Amino acid sequence: MSDTIFSRIIRGEIPCHRVYQDEHVLAFLDINPLSEGHTLVVPKEPAATMAELSEDAAAGLGRALPAICRAVTKATGTDSYNLLQNNGSAAGQEVEHVHFHVIPRRAGGRGATGLSVEWNAQEVGEDQLADVARRIARLC
Amino acid sequence: MSDTIFSRIIRGEIPCHRVYQDEHVLAFLDINPLSEGHTLVVPKEPAATMAELSEDAAAGLGRALPAICRAVTKATGTDSYNLLQNNGSAAGQEVEHVHFHVIPRRAGGRGATGLSVEWNAQEVGEDQLADVARRIARLC
Repeated sequence: MSDTIFSRIIRGEIPCHRVYQDEHVLAFLDINPLSEGHTLVVPKEPAATMAELSEDAAAGLGRALPAICRAVTKATGTDSYNLLQNNGSAAGQEVEHVHFHVIPRRAGGRGATGLSVEWNAQEVGEDQLADVARRIARLC
Repeated sequence: MSDTIFSRIIRGEIPCHRVYQDEHVLAFLDINPLSEGHTLVVPKEPAATMAELSEDAAAGLGRALPAICRAVTKATGTDSYNLLQNNGSAAGQEVEHVHFHVIPRRAGGRGATGLSVEWNAQEVGEDQLADVARRIARLC
């Protein structure tokens, strides 16, 4: 994969507003936040997508999330937040280095969150679900 | 926390369309999918939100994600997908047991994804970002 702005931030070549760092992970503020405290949690291993990340790097990424979420919510006084991780252009990925967005959510008014998620579920039959589950399970 | 439908699925009291299981994690299809292959990845440890999950359970959850994402994308022929994890009612959480949605994304037409994410970033000054980062870092 090509070098990205996140690799350059991890190497210290570009500054960031850092909130957390350990062996596997660097977390820093999104400079175009959807809400106060909008944080990016980035594995130091350079992989473009979650499917390409090593198991050890993914475990390290997971391990860091609870403490970062606690800190973000306490510091911003929110109790609702989304974790969002985009893979591929059709999913809105802009930087080709895995990153979780931690996005504090607030109801309307001052400080409202610039994230809107619309959810249109499909009606699917049991047979179709069973078939899809078999196809995925075989590949896991 | 109270018992949820996911605890009951993990205990085998309610059936599911399972795609993966290990010591820490159970993954199964969402029965109201946003797209074909929409999968829920659930830690066996019962915690309502990511901030309440233990580090070991969060590491186990992270470790399972790459293989599940590879299987979901291969089985459904998609290369774009979102991971979304909602915490608290203002973030759209409906079941009070941590779960990642793995949502394959497709462009319009047949098989299009019933997920729409709108992103309205804020303009924030460097001083304000530095202040927020300090407040979060202190709590990490």
